Amino acid sequence: MFAVEVSDHIMIAHSFRGEVFGPAQALHGATFAVSAAFIAERLDPNGIVVDIGRANDVLKAVLGSLNYRNLDNFPEFKNDNTTTEFLTKYLFDKLAAAVRAGELGRDGREISALRVTIGESPTARAWYEAPLW
Amino acid sequence: MFAVEVSDHIMIAHSFRGEVFGPAQALHGATFAVSAAFIAERLDPNGIVVDIGRANDVLKAVLGSLNYRNLDNFPEFKNDNTTTEFLTKYLFDKLAAAVRAGELGRDGREISALRVTIGESPTARAWYEAPLW
Amino acid sequence: MFAVEVSDHIMIAHSFRGEVFGPAQALHGATFAVSAAFIAERLDPNGIVVDIGRANDVLKAVLGSLNYRNLDNFPEFKNDNTTTEFLTKYLFDKLAAAVRAGELGRDGREISALRVTIGESPTARAWYEAPLW
Amino acid sequence: MFAVEVSDHIMIAHSFRGEVFGPAQALHGATFAVSAAFIAERLDPNGIVVDIGRANDVLKAVLGSLNYRNLDNFPEFKNDNTTTEFLTKYLFDKLAAAVRAGELGRDGREISALRVTIGESPTARAWYEAPLW
Amino acid sequence: MFAVEVSDHIMIAHSFRGEVFGPAQALHGATFAVSAAFIAERLDPNGIVVDIGRANDVLKAVLGSLNYRNLDNFPEFKNDNTTTEFLTKYLFDKLAAAVRAGELGRDGREISALRVTIGESPTARAWYEAPLW
Amino acid sequence: MFAVEVSDHIMIAHSFRGEVFGPAQALHGATFAVSAAFIAERLDPNGIVVDIGRANDVLKAVLGSLNYRNLDNFPEFKNDNTTTEFLTKYLFDKLAAAVRAGELGRDGREISALRVTIGESPTARAWYEAPLW
Repeated sequence: MFAVEVSDHIMIAHSFRGEVFGPAQALHGATFAVSAAFIAERLDPNGIVVDIGRANDVLKAVLGSLNYRNLDNFPEFKNDNTTTEFLTKYLFDKLAAAVRAGELGRDGREISALRVTIGESPTARAWYEAPLW
Repeated sequence: MFAVEVSDHIMIAHSFRGEVFGPAQALHGATFAVSAAFIAERLDPNGIVVDIGRANDVLKAVLGSLNYRNLDNFPEFKNDNTTTEFLTKYLFDKLAAAVRAGELGRDGREISALRVTIGESPTARAWYEAPLW
Repeated sequence: MFAVEVSDHIMIAHSFRGEVFGPAQALHGATFAVSAAFIAERLDPNGIVVDIGRANDVLKAVLGSLNYRNLDNFPEFKNDNTTTEFLTKYLFDKLAAAVRAGELGRDGREISALRVTIGESPTARAWYEAPLW
Repeated sequence: MFAVEVSDHIMIAHSFRGEVFGPAQALHGATFAVSAAFIAERLDPNGIVVDIGRANDVLKAVLGSLNYRNLDNFPEFKNDNTTTEFLTKYLFDKLAAAVRAGELGRDGREISALRVTIGESPTARAWYEAPLW
Repeated sequence: MFAVEVSDHIMIAHSFRGEVFGPAQALHGATFAVSAAFIAERLDPNGIVVDIGRANDVLKAVLGSLNYRNLDNFPEFKNDNTTTEFLTKYLFDKLAAAVRAGELGRDGREISALRVTIGESPTARAWYEAPLW
Repeated sequence: MFAVEVSDHIMIAHSFRGEVFGPAQALHGATFAVSAAFIAERLDPNGIVVDIGRANDVLKAVLGSLNYRNLDNFPEFKNDNTTTEFLTKYLFDKLAAAVRAGELGRDGREISALRVTIGESPTARAWYEAPLW
C-alpha cells in the first residue's frame, strides 16, 4: 500500500459544551497542524499516488473556509463540538468528496483510502482513517 | 476509525543481557518519549474518543512508576530485557487495564484498540498495537 | 554562557485590530508552544542553572492564567494586540519577576538574562530576549 | 503487532518526466529522511523485533548506493520517475531482500511486514507498507 | 530584543568543487528548510516586528528563483560553492535588500538585524546573522 | 557571523546528589540529543565554516567515550553532578580542544566560538556558548 501525505495548518477559535471538557468549555483556540494522507494500491503511470502540489492545493482549499474563524459561529457545526476528532472526520469528508470528483488529478476510484491527522499541541493529536469505496 | 494520541516522557536506566546488544549490555539509560493512541469506531456523544486531559492523566500515572528509576531493579522485569519494544507491550497492558476499568471515562468496550509508541532517540522508535477485545 | 530552557503550551482565542492583520482581525485562536530559557554566567554548586522541575512549575503557573481563555476579554490587554511578539514580552516580564523574587530557587541576580520563544504554527515563531539586570 | 523503526537520510538529484510535475521536471534535488519499520508478531528471545544497531547498518548500506548521486544517471531507473513514492517501494524491495537473507540477525520469516517512509520536505512525505510473506 | 521568524523550503540540485567535499563533489541535491528571523528593538504600533504574512511572502519570493533548480547553472554562483553556509549569506543579502526597500511593510531602519537558518538534513544546519545598519 | 551545527545523540545512566533534584537523585538515565555549532566570522575558500562530515566525525568521537555508560563511574566526574548543563560545558571543552588542534580541518583561530546544545527530553534542553579565543 502506497501513501502520500501533505501538511498545512489553520488557526481557529471555538468552545465546547459538556462538563468533560473542564476549562475548554470557555472560548479558546488552537493551531491545528493538519496532514492528509492519500492511500493507493498502485502508483499511476507517472509514478505517483497523487501530485503533491495538487494535494497541497486541495488541502489548502478545504482548510481555507475554517482558517482565522470562530467555529462556534458556523451553522453547520451548531449541534456538534468541533473537537480535534470531529474535525478529522469533517476534513476527511471534504477531501473524500474532492477525491471522488477527480480534483486530485487521478481517477478517484484509484485512491483506496484517506487518513486525516490533526495535531492540536506538542502532546496531543487525533486522526481519522477510512476506505473511500 | 478514529484515534486520539497523547504524549509524555520518562527518563530511566537499564542494561541488557545478550551479545546482540553489544555496548548496550552495560548499564546505560534513555529518555523515552511515549505516545498512547486510543482507537475507536465512533465518537462519544461529546464528540471525542476519550478526553485528552484524562488520557494524559492516565498515561502519566502509568509512567510514574518507571520514571527516574533503574529498571534493572524491578522484580517484575527480572526475566526480561526492558527493550523499547518490550516496554511498548508493558505499557499497552497497563493502559488496556485502565481502559477496561473505565478509567478513561468511557465504557471500555467502545475503545477498540490501543497503540503505544516509544521514541528512544532521534533515529529509533518502536510501537505495539493490538485490539482490546 | 549557560542556558536552560523548558517548554509548555497554551490554547487561546484572540483577535487583532489593524488592517495589516487581514483575516486575523476576526476572532480566531492559537496553540502557543512556549519555551523559557534561563541564562547564567555560572552554574550553581549543584551544577545547574536552575532546577528544570522548578522552571517547569514556574512556567506553568505563568501560563495558567492565559490557558483556555479569550485574550480579548483581559482588561490588561485592552490597549494592545496580543500578538505572538507581544506575548513573548508579556511572559518575559512575568518570568523576570519570578526570577527576581527567587522563585526559581536561586538568587535572582545569578540569572543574567531570559529568552521567551513562542511557536504559533509549524512555520512561524517569535522570541524576546533581554538581560535581567 | 510490534514494530521497530530506524531512520537515516540521503541527499540526491533527479528530474521528472510528465507535465503533472510542473517545475519539478527540471533537474533539482532532495534531502530524503528515510525511516524503515520492521514489523513482527512476536519479540525474539532477547526481547527485540530486530537489533536497532543492525537495522541502522542495513538501512545505511541500502541507502549508500543512492546518496550524493544524480538518480537520472542510474540505468535501473531509466524507465521510471524516481518520485518519493517510487523510492519507498524501491527501498522496501531492497530491505525485504535483506530481511529474507537473514541480514537483520533473525529468521526472516519472523518479520511479517515492512514500512518505508520518506520525508521529502517539512510538508510532504510518502510511505509504502506491505507484508513480506 | 524581539524577533519574528518564518519558514519555508526549497528543493535544489548542485555539486561542490574541492576535495574536502568527498562524495558531495558529485551532482546531488538537497531539501533546504529555510527560516528567516527579523530582529527589532521595539514593536511597531500594531504590536508586531513585521507582519508574518508579509514576511512569508517576501521569503517565498526570494526562494522562488532557486526552487526546483540546478544551482550549478546559475552564472552568479559560477565562482562559488553553493554550500549551506554560502546560501545563508546569499539569502541574507536578498532579505536585507527587501527590508531596506520597505517591502516588509515597516521602515527598514527599525529592523536591526536578520538571521537566516538553513536545515539541510535532520542532523545538519547552518545560519548567518548580522546587523543591518 | 556564520555557524554550522551538527547533531548526534548518546544514551547514558547517572544520578544526582542534592535535594533540589528530588526523584532524579536515584539512578536513572537519558537520551541526550547533542548539537555542536561551530561559529566563524568568515567562510573558508571552499565556502564552508567547517566540513560537515568532519564535524560529525569529531562530535561522534567526543561522544563515544560517554555513550552507553553510567556516568557515575567516571573518576573525572566524581566531584560533579553530570547535569545537562554540566555536560554542555564538558563537551564544549572537548570540542574546543579539537578545534584548537586543527582537527576540524581549518586553522582553529578562524573558529571564533562554539555552542553545544543538549536536549534531554521533548520539554527541556540546555546550552553553553563561549568564544574560543
